[in-house]
Amino acid sequence: MSTDTEPKCSPTHPALSGSEKAIQGLRETGQYFFQRGWSVGTSSNYSVVVNRSPLQLMVTASGMDKGRLKPNDFVRCNYDGNQVDGSNMPTTDQPRSSAETLLHVVIARMEEVGSVLHTHSVWGTLLSDHFGAKGGFEIEDYEMLKGLAGVKTHQHVEHVPIFENTQDIPKLSEKVEKRLHDESQPPIHGFLIRNHGLYTWGEDLDEARRHIEIYEFLFEVLGRKLAAQGKLCQSV
Amino acid sequence: MSTDTEPKCSPTHPALSGSEKAIQGLRETGQYFFQRGWSVGTSSNYSVVVNRSPLQLMVTASGMDKGRLKPNDFVRCNYDGNQVDGSNMPTTDQPRSSAETLLHVVIARMEEVGSVLHTHSVWGTLLSDHFGAKGGFEIEDYEMLKGLAGVKTHQHVEHVPIFENTQDIPKLSEKVEKRLHDESQPPIHGFLIRNHGLYTWGEDLDEARRHIEIYEFLFEVLGRKLAAQGKLCQSV
Amino acid sequence: MSTDTEPKCSPTHPALSGSEKAIQGLRETGQYFFQRGWSVGTSSNYSVVVNRSPLQLMVTASGMDKGRLKPNDFVRCNYDGNQVDGSNMPTTDQPRSSAETLLHVVIARMEEVGSVLHTHSVWGTLLSDHFGAKGGFEIEDYEMLKGLAGVKTHQHVEHVPIFENTQDIPKLSEKVEKRLHDESQPPIHGFLIRNHGLYTWGEDLDEARRHIEIYEFLFEVLGRKLAAQGKLCQSV
Amino acid sequence: MSTDTEPKCSPTHPALSGSEKAIQGLRETGQYFFQRGWSVGTSSNYSVVVNRSPLQLMVTASGMDKGRLKPNDFVRCNYDGNQVDGSNMPTTDQPRSSAETLLHVVIARMEEVGSVLHTHSVWGTLLSDHFGAKGGFEIEDYEMLKGLAGVKTHQHVEHVPIFENTQDIPKLSEKVEKRLHDESQPPIHGFLIRNHGLYTWGEDLDEARRHIEIYEFLFEVLGRKLAAQGKLCQSV
Repeated sequence: MSTDTEPKCSPTHPALSGSEKAIQGLRETGQYFFQRGWSVGTSSNYSVVVNRSPLQLMVTASGMDKGRLKPNDFVRCNYDGNQVDGSNMPTTDQPRSSAETLLHVVIARMEEVGSVLHTHSVWGTLLSDHFGAKGGFEIEDYEMLKGLAGVKTHQHVEHVPIFENTQDIPKLSEKVEKRLHDESQPPIHGFLIRNHGLYTWGEDLDEARRHIEIYEFLFEVLGRKLAAQGKLCQSV
Repeated sequence: MSTDTEPKCSPTHPALSGSEKAIQGLRETGQYFFQRGWSVGTSSNYSVVVNRSPLQLMVTASGMDKGRLKPNDFVRCNYDGNQVDGSNMPTTDQPRSSAETLLHVVIARMEEVGSVLHTHSVWGTLLSDHFGAKGGFEIEDYEMLKGLAGVKTHQHVEHVPIFENTQDIPKLSEKVEKRLHDESQPPIHGFLIRNHGLYTWGEDLDEARRHIEIYEFLFEVLGRKLAAQGKLCQSV
Repeated sequence: MSTDTEPKCSPTHPALSGSEKAIQGLRETGQYFFQRGWSVGTSSNYSVVVNRSPLQLMVTASGMDKGRLKPNDFVRCNYDGNQVDGSNMPTTDQPRSSAETLLHVVIARMEEVGSVLHTHSVWGTLLSDHFGAKGGFEIEDYEMLKGLAGVKTHQHVEHVPIFENTQDIPKLSEKVEKRLHDESQPPIHGFLIRNHGLYTWGEDLDEARRHIEIYEFLFEVLGRKLAAQGKLCQSV
Repeated sequence: MSTDTEPKCSPTHPALSGSEKAIQGLRETGQYFFQRGWSVGTSSNYSVVVNRSPLQLMVTASGMDKGRLKPNDFVRCNYDGNQVDGSNMPTTDQPRSSAETLLHVVIARMEEVGSVLHTHSVWGTLLSDHFGAKGGFEIEDYEMLKGLAGVKTHQHVEHVPIFENTQDIPKLSEKVEKRLHDESQPPIHGFLIRNHGLYTWGEDLDEARRHIEIYEFLFEVLGRKLAAQGKLCQSV
């Protein structure tokens, strides 16, 4: 873990202004993903890093309609995933952070990450089911792979790990963080949770959105191909 | 049946205001569902409980275009599914209640229900065909199940009963009401009518909409999975 | 043929006003169908009857982008499919009527028809291919059938004739008109042209739109069912 | 190669005005294609010929979000694919031309071409995979083929060549240009790059857009047909 967690004297106003910008961007992202069908039923969570050191994320609160996010449907969380600001006051009408906030945090601890997006799509769910027992799959040879940060050629093999779904988010977060820093395995741009959804990230919200689009496009191509071949959700 | 049906002295103006809010919400819901393809061809019916005791629902009138609902495309119905207010006057240009209003009513008689939504989707139709002879099916192990009220884990088994389609709505309503109150069977959040459509509900319009989204997402996942496996609409 | 074709003294202004209303409605219909993917690539033609006797239709001109129809992208045609008004002047920048106008005309000659809509959809094309050699197919037992004018129960069998595609529109129009008036065969609400598209109609534009929606919904259901069964576009 | 490449005295203002019109049209095209899912993840490139002699194209710059193109997300390129105007200044915040600009250029060198559009779609990708080893495929007998410029009947056979994907764009451009001018082979309206995307063109932006719509419609029809037949992405 290389992230600097020591508090620094960061100016307040730029931080607030960054939060407002983050909220505005995430609300617009919610409308867009909802319209695509990737964030229906109040599913999904989105975050933007609003302060690097100490780490603070603006995260969608638990259970909000992503197609109609309001300015106060967000919580600010710290390095440990706990809410900061007035959000630890014992009022019940405060938005609460989602249990999955911890997954955002362990991803955002990587210094190069400025935004984390989690979505639920039909094709992502089907692929996570199909390849779940194998623990992941590879995507290769598609031009669209070049939309993933740093990928310069279609002749790239992108590994997509799949984690078993669980309601024990701290345990899952530990596994995810371990995988993110496991240098014996290929670097990744995202991962699936089985029968649950996709996590990806980027240096900023725009890049994270681009990654969602790239994964969703490739998931649909791969899913339709496997379905046409009579392989999808047969024993792998 | 635990619903209190005795008339109480409820103030008129809040009720009217509630009606206006209900109509506004249902018109917006219609535009949204129409755009998704879940309410085309003037299909579907939506309702909101505007008074609990005595029970009164604001329901979409018969045969209206759900993508372009106008403020007067609604009727107010009572516990028995009959229109109230001026709607029993012998004028022909009054909107009339749909025959299926009675289905809304038997669902809305449950005290915890504030809104009932009925839609017609392609995947719902295909699943109702596929599982129709069995009278229903189960959905389990998907994270999206947690979007159904009260479900706390993906390790949930949701039963989706399927009723045979009929034009005898009173008879169907009786069957539905019996199933809703049959404590020997698992509780449900919605049901299908074979080759017809989905009924679901919620404590308010937002929750009912969320349930529609959850069912439609899961129907598409399950439908595509069965299709890919070569099972959909083969003999079950 | 029972349509009265003798010219009557019809007031000019209401007719003009009807034309403007027709054009407005068809422009909006074009945007909607284009967005659904049923009228892309300048395909499709729409018409509204603006005068019954003598018969006059406002029809989309040839080759216009249906998603961006302008007020002058229409021509007025008569009982024989010829353009009326200033449109027979030898100017080249006048919009010209589509060759398929004649198909609109033979349908609109039926007195109960106020609008004719022709669209090109993926599922309609696939079904027209699949059932083309048989010359048609039946749709039955779906609640959505009740969206077709006069159908009161899902226990209805709707025949969908399929005509072979041809560029000889007068010959095709003759076949279509013969079928429309052939009382030895079941009445229909629309038909397909093989590997080409759908024609349907209604007493007004709203009803014709509803019929398009009903057919498209049912085509998708039937197409997905046949595909899942491994039958679609296999030898029938 | 018949294109006149000698510089002529072309008036500056109409050219500038043409550029502004080109940019406006391409920005709107980007929003539209993005919404259809044909240009997600910053994929795709679009161009409009803003001067014929000497040839100058307005091309989308590298890596821009096609759903949110800004007025300065474009570069002006010449006959050789090099940027003109101030774009060869050593500033880093200038938008840069995409590597694929050269493909636009070799197509736009044909005098009848006013616009080139390149998109990435799911069905195009699947067909390019399916038919890639054969180097192309034919589409015939669909009415929608008449949306391709100059095609007058559905009884047309349209050849769709498929080029192997590569990051060596100059080499690919050479192959493409050779094919475009190879009179021993049937003329084409577009081509695919394997597991990458579609290129098509037209005498102006409207015609190029229409061609994209026609190809995408026909790719979906053909892709769904092959999938239903159990052939898609099996050995051809």
